[in-house]
Amino acid sequence: MHELGVVYRNIERADAAAADALAAFGSATVHEAMGRVGLMKPYMRPIYSGAQVSGTAVTVLLQPGDNWMMHVAAEQIRPGDVVVAAVTSECSDGYFGDLLATSFKARGARALVIDAGVRDVKTLTEMRFPVWSKAISARGTIKATLGSVNIPVVCAGMIVHPGDVIVADDDGVVCVPAALAARTLDAARAREANEGGKREKFASGVLGLDLYDMRGPLAKAGLRYVD
Amino acid sequence: MHELGVVYRNIERADAAAADALAAFGSATVHEAMGRVGLMKPYMRPIYSGAQVSGTAVTVLLQPGDNWMMHVAAEQIRPGDVVVAAVTSECSDGYFGDLLATSFKARGARALVIDAGVRDVKTLTEMRFPVWSKAISARGTIKATLGSVNIPVVCAGMIVHPGDVIVADDDGVVCVPAALAARTLDAARAREANEGGKREKFASGVLGLDLYDMRGPLAKAGLRYVD
Amino acid sequence: MHELGVVYRNIERADAAAADALAAFGSATVHEAMGRVGLMKPYMRPIYSGAQVSGTAVTVLLQPGDNWMMHVAAEQIRPGDVVVAAVTSECSDGYFGDLLATSFKARGARALVIDAGVRDVKTLTEMRFPVWSKAISARGTIKATLGSVNIPVVCAGMIVHPGDVIVADDDGVVCVPAALAARTLDAARAREANEGGKREKFASGVLGLDLYDMRGPLAKAGLRYVD
Amino acid sequence: MHELGVVYRNIERADAAAADALAAFGSATVHEAMGRVGLMKPYMRPIYSGAQVSGTAVTVLLQPGDNWMMHVAAEQIRPGDVVVAAVTSECSDGYFGDLLATSFKARGARALVIDAGVRDVKTLTEMRFPVWSKAISARGTIKATLGSVNIPVVCAGMIVHPGDVIVADDDGVVCVPAALAARTLDAARAREANEGGKREKFASGVLGLDLYDMRGPLAKAGLRYVD
Amino acid sequence: MHELGVVYRNIERADAAAADALAAFGSATVHEAMGRVGLMKPYMRPIYSGAQVSGTAVTVLLQPGDNWMMHVAAEQIRPGDVVVAAVTSECSDGYFGDLLATSFKARGARALVIDAGVRDVKTLTEMRFPVWSKAISARGTIKATLGSVNIPVVCAGMIVHPGDVIVADDDGVVCVPAALAARTLDAARAREANEGGKREKFASGVLGLDLYDMRGPLAKAGLRYVD
Amino acid sequence: MHELGVVYRNIERADAAAADALAAFGSATVHEAMGRVGLMKPYMRPIYSGAQVSGTAVTVLLQPGDNWMMHVAAEQIRPGDVVVAAVTSECSDGYFGDLLATSFKARGARALVIDAGVRDVKTLTEMRFPVWSKAISARGTIKATLGSVNIPVVCAGMIVHPGDVIVADDDGVVCVPAALAARTLDAARAREANEGGKREKFASGVLGLDLYDMRGPLAKAGLRYVD
Repeated sequence: MHELGVVYRNIERADAAAADALAAFGSATVHEAMGRVGLMKPYMRPIYSGAQVSGTAVTVLLQPGDNWMMHVAAEQIRPGDVVVAAVTSECSDGYFGDLLATSFKARGARALVIDAGVRDVKTLTEMRFPVWSKAISARGTIKATLGSVNIPVVCAGMIVHPGDVIVADDDGVVCVPAALAARTLDAARAREANEGGKREKFASGVLGLDLYDMRGPLAKAGLRYVD
Repeated sequence: MHELGVVYRNIERADAAAADALAAFGSATVHEAMGRVGLMKPYMRPIYSGAQVSGTAVTVLLQPGDNWMMHVAAEQIRPGDVVVAAVTSECSDGYFGDLLATSFKARGARALVIDAGVRDVKTLTEMRFPVWSKAISARGTIKATLGSVNIPVVCAGMIVHPGDVIVADDDGVVCVPAALAARTLDAARAREANEGGKREKFASGVLGLDLYDMRGPLAKAGLRYVD
Repeated sequence: MHELGVVYRNIERADAAAADALAAFGSATVHEAMGRVGLMKPYMRPIYSGAQVSGTAVTVLLQPGDNWMMHVAAEQIRPGDVVVAAVTSECSDGYFGDLLATSFKARGARALVIDAGVRDVKTLTEMRFPVWSKAISARGTIKATLGSVNIPVVCAGMIVHPGDVIVADDDGVVCVPAALAARTLDAARAREANEGGKREKFASGVLGLDLYDMRGPLAKAGLRYVD
Repeated sequence: MHELGVVYRNIERADAAAADALAAFGSATVHEAMGRVGLMKPYMRPIYSGAQVSGTAVTVLLQPGDNWMMHVAAEQIRPGDVVVAAVTSECSDGYFGDLLATSFKARGARALVIDAGVRDVKTLTEMRFPVWSKAISARGTIKATLGSVNIPVVCAGMIVHPGDVIVADDDGVVCVPAALAARTLDAARAREANEGGKREKFASGVLGLDLYDMRGPLAKAGLRYVD
Repeated sequence: MHELGVVYRNIERADAAAADALAAFGSATVHEAMGRVGLMKPYMRPIYSGAQVSGTAVTVLLQPGDNWMMHVAAEQIRPGDVVVAAVTSECSDGYFGDLLATSFKARGARALVIDAGVRDVKTLTEMRFPVWSKAISARGTIKATLGSVNIPVVCAGMIVHPGDVIVADDDGVVCVPAALAARTLDAARAREANEGGKREKFASGVLGLDLYDMRGPLAKAGLRYVD
Repeated sequence: MHELGVVYRNIERADAAAADALAAFGSATVHEAMGRVGLMKPYMRPIYSGAQVSGTAVTVLLQPGDNWMMHVAAEQIRPGDVVVAAVTSECSDGYFGDLLATSFKARGARALVIDAGVRDVKTLTEMRFPVWSKAISARGTIKATLGSVNIPVVCAGMIVHPGDVIVADDDGVVCVPAALAARTLDAARAREANEGGKREKFASGVLGLDLYDMRGPLAKAGLRYVD
């Protein structure tokens, strides 16, 4: 957040297998698997429904109303990356449109997560290039002031280091530190295995009160039933 | 709003026929039929478009970041109910996901209306279990503190008593007190009958100015036309 | 903004050919073509995705919770118009529903842009009558207080004079002053011609850094690369 | 919330002694004494610092941009009352100024709590007539549509019945149901007695960890210290 | 709003006597005197309480995060002016601090009204240079992109033309078009004369119901009293 | 942000002399001295005007509605520290009141910066214990779930590492990384020295246009003057 005008070219990306595998679990399960941390603020919304991705973060710090560094960031993208963009001040301008999306896609980017605005959303939707953003805005940006690429940034309230794993879907966006990717993947698998069968039980009418043995703790906490 | 740690098991539900019939009129007409009261704040949005439901309210008061009482509420659901969830403090966490939805559905619930967040929205959409909420968030909740079930609650600015009728669609969520359900149904029918034919007139080019005889009152109020 | 109780019947509409032709360029390109001005605030969102329209503005100034002037405005609509509605105070009520939409459509209106709420959105979507609004709300309005029609208004932060061209799509809403319509159309065409071929280059992997010759200016601004 | 056009003249006010005595404890202590319920949303702010009042609620339901019922409410005020005003739709207009404040004060009102706007705040401050509101706005209101007086209302997210006790200070506004006033007063006194001496201990350097015996529970919950 | 890179040097300022005299009436009375129009949105707040000013508008249109044009505007200030600053996109950065305030004051400016942020508020308060703003923020701005001076702008939802009269106090900010200044002054005086004696009547216990003869209209509207 | 249930006891605090000296420059100058980075979002406001502090950060990560870790943090405070509190989810509850303030003060804390709510603000103001917060709320918290102390946190959009320097005043809150404290102090001094004399020049009527030699660059950028 504090260094401007610098591009780190060699970042340590999280293990690719773990980064790829996390998408299937979705943001809710991954967030739980991390101990209920890592989630960006819920104002981050997908521009279209149904996308579910994960990948390694290339970070970019932008200046308000200025998307110059997006072009600098494009060069640092490798296949499997997700670009995470933060701004030094609150801004809802449209930093990203169909041309940059074409460029990012050509470099192998899987998605953009941006704590600002995006435009050309109709075309982006047709291209199936998913974006999670704070706003949609036709307002464009200038190219005048330096930011940075691949420094730690705060995006929608969450610290993201370059190389961290980003997991995003209709429920939101989660950041998994690179060092925790493998462990989080294991925890997510364990969590999902544990959930196996529960849906069927709920569907058959079993209550969570019984499935999770909550009646005792509730009574102990003082819950009173009145007829 | 003021009683914690209690579950009322025997609530008086509004007349089922009226509760069922109100869905067809939609929130806008029902709100008008009540004299333009009863509407929750417009920040309550459906997780997918097109759902239109009505049913009797089972209410639940939750603590911030804690969904324990959702499981307690599940047991009180009867077929035809809509669960209405309020929180003692503002919170956007995801209190409800696909497992609880499966449970609610198995109990006969038609929808959830929650003044907080929801998650697993992709699966909920596939299940066609409609939710109206303030937020979508992957962030889960704990199970540590008691709230209440079937006490009067304030949800998105509106008082809801257990047993009241909830009508929800793409335009929002309306609460009809149980005692007014039949009368409101009559008023909604009368209103719709009265609207019959108007659409055709408007489509043929007749102006509201003439259809509603507004020219006189407008002139009397001082409206001036300038050529 | 300052004159109440008046309807201007003879407004000078922008050149119809230019007004019609601008839709194809979309709000982002038109906004750029104007020198990056003219955009309404990004909280203005379409009630359904994919609509893209342009037309000449009929303006209406409403009072809070009162849609009387919408009926007065209907009479002033000519084919090819877009109604632009502002309110004298912040309000999210549903000023407009399917009956008014039928009337507006019959008069030849292409869309409504309203700095307030709208309802019956399911029916409006089925009718394919596009609306850009600040809110969706079932709450209806009364008919008691005069506003004005075809005076200059401020809608979502932008001045709109009657007869100006409105361009709206999924990215937002732009207002082009009538006197600038032809010039803006030329600039939009030039801009689009200039963009021809760029998408292909980006798709082939060429970077914006090279396509726009940014490396020199970035170095001059002091950008540092760290390996 | 559902009955319009009615004024209840005979309301049961909470015990005056309890209603008067609660002011001294402040909103935070009273809120805790009730079991941490009853607080209005924190956007309700005093127009000047330092006021601390309690009194019995006279409620009024207003229409958006219309303060007619404020005059109707004035007649129902008795010495020791606090007027609580809700609106049927969100509105920030200035419903109340120095003339109404003079009238309310003459009737014996101690304060106004309004989920909308207020004006003439400079004069109100000089008069020392405290108001807790959502907004400050010079925009005035009309007198055209009926609301109600002394029906249950929702003000800033909290149900208030006529006769309930309102406690307000710099920390916010709390509503104590009339039936719970005496019990809440006892609980507040007990709470404050229990806090006696704690401030001195904290001032001398004793930690809450020791004063509240938290070290064991923290360790049991798994807290780890790293040197 | 649509012309960038231009400074109009010769603007027609409202009659100085009227512009000066309006301050004494305050924003609420002036807003009423204009027919309840002209008020900026209530998010505009003074940086300190008690200031009450009026003056003729020098307008400036700024770019997001860029205060270059504030220096250009300074040269256009004449004694008795109030600077009104708008931004082409939403921004809360601190465009104005103690140095610019010293400059503006030296040129004869009475206040700044800015739809963005301001800083050095402690010093500005000590200098008694009043500012009405959307935000307070330490974040500074660059000087890179042209805006305009003395073109019509939209500030906090209100059109302001150069030379219009601005009236600002603790209740908010009102814009009186230059051509209406004298007439508005007359109306404000008439309104205040008419209010003379009312405060005394209210203070003596007379109700607005009687003073304004509301009982008949209320009954006619259907108001019901219940004992 | 990602480690829960841990307290780091040995943190490296920034150089005390630099940490102490930065207060005098204020948040605006320090933010500029860092290259215009480091500022928390402007919604962070002081509970009373005029406080101006700096100190070394003790960080605490809290759970929503739960202030247990504040007591754990108290023990880690050393004279000269500023406590910086973040929450794992958005929350406006009152995590901190007069008892904790007494404890923090006894331990030597200079202030609290909290991305949530605070209460007892009247007493805190009397004690002159400054707090910068997102909200003021009487709503208290429970003590049930672990967070962490002295891990890196995101507070109001800014990364804060334990030991960093916090500078806060009426303009906002800035975080200076410990490693940059001395350099930032030098830059702040240089900046202030450079500003010496400017205020006098502005006061004498010299324009920024001339003082900063802006006329040439403005002309080059295309600024046009119209008489």
